[in-house]
Amino acid sequence: MKFYGRRMVRPEHLNSVNRLFGGTLLSWVDEEAYIFAKCQLRTPHLVTRHFSEVNFVSAAVQDDIVEFGLSVKKFGKTSITITCQVRNKDSKKVLIDIKKLVFVAVDRLGQPVPHGLGLEAVS
Amino acid sequence: MKFYGRRMVRPEHLNSVNRLFGGTLLSWVDEEAYIFAKCQLRTPHLVTRHFSEVNFVSAAVQDDIVEFGLSVKKFGKTSITITCQVRNKDSKKVLIDIKKLVFVAVDRLGQPVPHGLGLEAVS
Amino acid sequence: MKFYGRRMVRPEHLNSVNRLFGGTLLSWVDEEAYIFAKCQLRTPHLVTRHFSEVNFVSAAVQDDIVEFGLSVKKFGKTSITITCQVRNKDSKKVLIDIKKLVFVAVDRLGQPVPHGLGLEAVS
Amino acid sequence: MKFYGRRMVRPEHLNSVNRLFGGTLLSWVDEEAYIFAKCQLRTPHLVTRHFSEVNFVSAAVQDDIVEFGLSVKKFGKTSITITCQVRNKDSKKVLIDIKKLVFVAVDRLGQPVPHGLGLEAVS
Amino acid sequence: MKFYGRRMVRPEHLNSVNRLFGGTLLSWVDEEAYIFAKCQLRTPHLVTRHFSEVNFVSAAVQDDIVEFGLSVKKFGKTSITITCQVRNKDSKKVLIDIKKLVFVAVDRLGQPVPHGLGLEAVS
Amino acid sequence: MKFYGRRMVRPEHLNSVNRLFGGTLLSWVDEEAYIFAKCQLRTPHLVTRHFSEVNFVSAAVQDDIVEFGLSVKKFGKTSITITCQVRNKDSKKVLIDIKKLVFVAVDRLGQPVPHGLGLEAVS
Repeated sequence: MKFYGRRMVRPEHLNSVNRLFGGTLLSWVDEEAYIFAKCQLRTPHLVTRHFSEVNFVSAAVQDDIVEFGLSVKKFGKTSITITCQVRNKDSKKVLIDIKKLVFVAVDRLGQPVPHGLGLEAVS
Repeated sequence: MKFYGRRMVRPEHLNSVNRLFGGTLLSWVDEEAYIFAKCQLRTPHLVTRHFSEVNFVSAAVQDDIVEFGLSVKKFGKTSITITCQVRNKDSKKVLIDIKKLVFVAVDRLGQPVPHGLGLEAVS
Repeated sequence: MKFYGRRMVRPEHLNSVNRLFGGTLLSWVDEEAYIFAKCQLRTPHLVTRHFSEVNFVSAAVQDDIVEFGLSVKKFGKTSITITCQVRNKDSKKVLIDIKKLVFVAVDRLGQPVPHGLGLEAVS
Repeated sequence: MKFYGRRMVRPEHLNSVNRLFGGTLLSWVDEEAYIFAKCQLRTPHLVTRHFSEVNFVSAAVQDDIVEFGLSVKKFGKTSITITCQVRNKDSKKVLIDIKKLVFVAVDRLGQPVPHGLGLEAVS
Repeated sequence: MKFYGRRMVRPEHLNSVNRLFGGTLLSWVDEEAYIFAKCQLRTPHLVTRHFSEVNFVSAAVQDDIVEFGLSVKKFGKTSITITCQVRNKDSKKVLIDIKKLVFVAVDRLGQPVPHGLGLEAVS
Repeated sequence: MKFYGRRMVRPEHLNSVNRLFGGTLLSWVDEEAYIFAKCQLRTPHLVTRHFSEVNFVSAAVQDDIVEFGLSVKKFGKTSITITCQVRNKDSKKVLIDIKKLVFVAVDRLGQPVPHGLGLEAVS
């Protein structure tokens, strides 16, 4: 799995026991995966359709750098399915693993449109 | 299901087709569910352990008000399992349904501690 | 008085003596009251017209959960007057009491428009 | 009245009719007045104690620059009372006038402490 | 040099050794200088064209108030060149000095337009 | 040059002609370069010391994805010098080129400390 964007955990991302908030991490995942999906497809607009279940396996603390591993799992007609793993850049401990993140190509009105890429799985 | 906090969708929450970002919605869910869980338990600290899968069923646009339905599904020894539904306050259309959100009571060091509430399901 | 939205005090909301900033609290009040007012009226747009005086009676610290009590005090022809109390969810101590928050229904250009609701006081 | 800090109205500060949110403006006032008060006193810590009533007289739109007029109205033993006017930098139209903003000098624990400045009114 | 806007350093602006982040400081400079430039010119739109080199000479810590000294160095046909110094409001220690900040007047499409002010240096 | 983190331009990053703000871009550069520098060195803390001059060559608009090219230019005894180029991920047009970004390894008190890496240039 190739790792892309990195984020540093700062004070405003911490909960009361000084760990990275789960919701903050999920919003980072959505943003990184959205960018990744957008880079694969030829259509300008995407919406998030599905997140498979998420287990928060280990925590991150202030100043930790986390990195986002992303790969395409499948191209549908209008959708793209992505796998994501977030890990600590230094220790390589996995924070979360998300098996399926589905994004759908849409037109300006939000209606699904074919993205024109192969229907075969790539990885 | 009882509905608690409400949020208004503002420009900085929108993606390129003017719909609420999925990741923004998930970070709101984490925050609302965290507050809800904290209100049920007698221990001061919690961490997010698990989100079950999420389908983004309908979208929200600017100025929409969304509300968060939350109920306790189960008390574990150190955990609490919550169900969450987010819907449009006006049209009542469901945006997302999350069957299980698990939070764990922890001490100052982040180690699980019993929260002292009944092990029986409440709803 | 019925209590609606809840917020958790996080590090970025604190002043130099680790208390919730007054201005942050007032911007939360405006947002919660705006949503509340919007839910009462049949017109899509509102602007804030008036806040009566505010005494910051007690403080909130990190991890405190505050809740917002809101009720309609009066319907004018184009306005709605709301009462707001913010209190600590756990201790029930009042942070601030605002006797009158006035919002005005407006059209797309910001001009006042009748909202069509009864002119009688409701609570 | 002397005018200090300036802010530019950006998209994330706008409500649904593209006017500056009242709550955003109040949080700016608190921040500017807090800094102003801190600059007058010899004690390091302050808390907001009181805002007198606020009428939102005129609105600001995107790209408007607003400026904050601030003056000391009175020194108490532990408090300082400030007057604030916010106006459009270009048109000089007044957005809001706040007759009294009271801040109190406190110690590290948030208890009021004398700030050592004259008890006479200065302006 | 005249000093304009002031900012207070808060927890979310700090790096891991509790000093103000360099990037946060530069984004404040851009905002303050942009407002200053906009106030000098008669055209509504500006873009940032150039920052000369920046040495971070001294640091700021939580609760410090920093102030922004700004002056016009030169008017070009479509541009304005500004000098900026940021210092600690209390100790007067300089944080950064930026010799040249260039902004360009543009039309709605972002194309340079003459701003109509004198081509002579003013300070 | 290798490209690392990516960011998507959203409404809150835009100036009045709908282009990415210069200051927002510089704060992204500082954050990405800080993370990159931290990953090269063996010491936990860094501060920003210097940015060489910056020309804003081309602009980015909403939904553009920008990526950050980063490489080490030189290791000093306590410092690391980095080169950064930001370009549009799709069109490859360069937004800005920064020849030298200097970060310094520091201890908990902010005093420079040797980082223990080779003094030779690496790229």
